[in-house]
Amino acid sequence: MTRLFDAAVANLGPLRTEALVEATVLHDRLTKPRGALGRLEPLGIRLAGIAGVCPPPVPAPAFVAVFAGDHGVLAQGVSPWPQEVTAQMVANFCAGGAAINVIARQTGARVVVVDVGVASLLEDAPGLLRRKVRPGTADFTTTTAMSVDEARDALDVGAEVAADLVAAGARCLVTGEMGIGNTTPAAALIAALTRRPAVEVTGRGTGVDDTTLARKVAVVEAGLTRHAIAIAAGPLDTLAALGGLEIAALTGFIVGGAAARVPVVVDGVIADAALLVAARMAPGVLPFCIAGHRSSEPGATAVLDHLGLDPLLDLGLRLGEGSGACLALPVVEAAARVLREMATFDSAGVSGK
Amino acid sequence: MTRLFDAAVANLGPLRTEALVEATVLHDRLTKPRGALGRLEPLGIRLAGIAGVCPPPVPAPAFVAVFAGDHGVLAQGVSPWPQEVTAQMVANFCAGGAAINVIARQTGARVVVVDVGVASLLEDAPGLLRRKVRPGTADFTTTTAMSVDEARDALDVGAEVAADLVAAGARCLVTGEMGIGNTTPAAALIAALTRRPAVEVTGRGTGVDDTTLARKVAVVEAGLTRHAIAIAAGPLDTLAALGGLEIAALTGFIVGGAAARVPVVVDGVIADAALLVAARMAPGVLPFCIAGHRSSEPGATAVLDHLGLDPLLDLGLRLGEGSGACLALPVVEAAARVLREMATFDSAGVSGK
Repeated sequence: MTRLFDAAVANLGPLRTEALVEATVLHDRLTKPRGALGRLEPLGIRLAGIAGVCPPPVPAPAFVAVFAGDHGVLAQGVSPWPQEVTAQMVANFCAGGAAINVIARQTGARVVVVDVGVASLLEDAPGLLRRKVRPGTADFTTTTAMSVDEARDALDVGAEVAADLVAAGARCLVTGEMGIGNTTPAAALIAALTRRPAVEVTGRGTGVDDTTLARKVAVVEAGLTRHAIAIAAGPLDTLAALGGLEIAALTGFIVGGAAARVPVVVDGVIADAALLVAARMAPGVLPFCIAGHRSSEPGATAVLDHLGLDPLLDLGLRLGEGSGACLALPVVEAAARVLREMATFDSAGVSGK
Repeated sequence: MTRLFDAAVANLGPLRTEALVEATVLHDRLTKPRGALGRLEPLGIRLAGIAGVCPPPVPAPAFVAVFAGDHGVLAQGVSPWPQEVTAQMVANFCAGGAAINVIARQTGARVVVVDVGVASLLEDAPGLLRRKVRPGTADFTTTTAMSVDEARDALDVGAEVAADLVAAGARCLVTGEMGIGNTTPAAALIAALTRRPAVEVTGRGTGVDDTTLARKVAVVEAGLTRHAIAIAAGPLDTLAALGGLEIAALTGFIVGGAAARVPVVVDGVIADAALLVAARMAPGVLPFCIAGHRSSEPGATAVLDHLGLDPLLDLGLRLGEGSGACLALPVVEAAARVLREMATFDSAGVSGK
C-alpha cells in the first residue's frame, strides 16, 4: 500500500506560471507606486502561483495543527521542565488557554491538537486527534529515537492531518508543536542536515542556564557521533535516529499541505527543523512554504539561511506552538487581498507618472 | 481660547505604574516560559500602562486617519507624480479601493480621510472630513511652507480628529497620510530636527531615479539653508517653515491620541517625521506611540534610531497611507489579548520548572 507521505511527495507540483505572470502584471496596475508594498507583492504573486489563479483566494480559514510528542533525550537533563508538562499543555491547548489559542483567536485561525507521541495516555478533549505512533521517543544518545518505520508512520500522520484539514476547508496550514525537550532533537537534526557544528545551532530553548546549554551541546554532539551512519544514509534515517515524533509529523504535514496546494506557514525552530527534513526529502515543497517568523533560537536562523528564506516577522518569540507563524497570518492574507480588492489606476481614475 | 493641540499637550500623563507592575507580574504566571513571547510581552505591559488597567483592554477598534495635503515644493521636480494624484487618491480612499482600505478591512480597522491641505476643492465623499487649513503649502525653497498660525491650525485639526475618533469609540489610532511630494518635506524636517545631512535622510519616495533623488537632496539642502533661523527657533517654527499640512496634522493627531490615553501606531517616514516633531514639542507622547513598521526610506530609520524605537514590522513597505502601521495592528492586539486570555500555570494545572 502506498504510504500517504509518499503519495503527497508524488503529488507535489510546480507553482502555476500563468497565475504568477498575471499577478505580476496586475500588481503594476494597482493604485500604488511599483513595489511600494514591499514583501507583500512577491508574497501575493506566490499565493497566485500556489492557488493557480489570479487574483489568488484569501488563504483563510487557516488551521494550526499542534503536534505533540515527548523525547527520551530529556533524561539527559536538557530542560528544566518535567515531561508531564507536554500532556498538561495539550490539555491547555484543548481548553483554549495557551498562547497559540489566544493568537489564533486574534487572527481567525482554528487550532487542532495531534497526539503523535506524548509519553502518557491522554484523556479525550475537544480538538484532540489521537494519532500516537509511540509514547515518546527513545534517548538518541543511547539508541535511535525511533525506528525508520515509526518515522514513516509519523510522516504519514502529518500528511493525513494536512489532507484532512484541507478537506475540512482549510485554505492555509500553520505548523504548531509541543514537546518538552524538543529543541534538542531539532538542533541535532539541523546540525546533521546543514553540517554545522552543534554549538552553532543549539540554543537556550525555554531559557536554560549556561550549564544546561553546555550539556545540550554535548548531547547534540553525542547524537551526531552515535548516528553518523544514519546521517550519511539520508534524511529519513537521520529523522528516525534523532527524532522526534512531532518533528516527523510536521515534516509530513508540510509536504501534505504543499501537495494540496495550500500555503504552509512555518513557525519557529522545531518547524524549521521539520521543514529542513521536508526540503531534503522533497525539494518541491519550498515554493509552498512561508517562513512566518524568526525564532530567537540560533538553529532557526541556520535553517532559514540554509534554505534562503526570509521570515515575515522577527519579534523575538521563542515559544513554539505555532505562535509566531499564526501572528504572521494577517500579512499573508493581506498579500492576497491586495490583489483581489485594490483599485487599478484605470478603475479609480488615478493619473500615472 | 486655548488651542486643542496645546490642551492635549497639557493633558499628557505618564504610564500608570500600578498597571505596569501588575502586567509584569501577570506575564510571569502565564503558561509559557518567561520572556518566550518576545516583544509581545513588553508591548502588552505598555498597553496596560497606557490604559491604566491590567489586563489591558484589547485596543480595538482601531481607526486610521489619512491626512491629505499638497506641497508647493513639488514645483521643484521632486516627484514624477502630478499633484492631482493627491485628490484622486483621496477619492480612492473614500471609495475603498486603496491599499490602506484593503489592509484596514483585513485587520478590522476603520478609515477616515481628512483634507487638511489638498490643493484642489474636493467633492463630498463618504468618510471625508473637510478640515482644509490652506490649499497646499508654499514652496519651502522660496518661502515658508505655511505660517506659524497655519501650522498651529493644522496641529489643532489633528488633535481634534484624534479626540473625536476616541469619542466615537476608537481604542487605538493609526497614522495615515497622502500627499504627492511629501517625502521631501519629511526629509527636510528629519534633517533639521536630527541634525543629519540631507543626503542621509532623503530617499527615493515612490521610487525616483538617481537624477530626481539628487534634485531632492539639493531641494532639502536649500530648505535647510533658507530656514536656518526658523530651525534654530524650535520645532513649531521648523514645522511651519518646511511643512507640510498633513505632517502638522499628524503631529497633532499623535499628541491628541496620547492625551486620550490610547496607543498610537505610527506608520512610515511621513508619520515618523510628524512623530519627531511631536516628541520635540511634547516628549511625553513617546510612551503612547508604537512604531508600526520600518519604511524603506532612510529618513524613517533616522527617526527611529533618534528616538530609540524598534518597529514591529520590517516588510520593505514604502507606500504610506498608514499601510504598514495598519498591518501591525494584529500584533498590538495580540499583545493585549495574551494578558487577558492566557491561562496561568495555576489555573491550567501546568507544572513549573
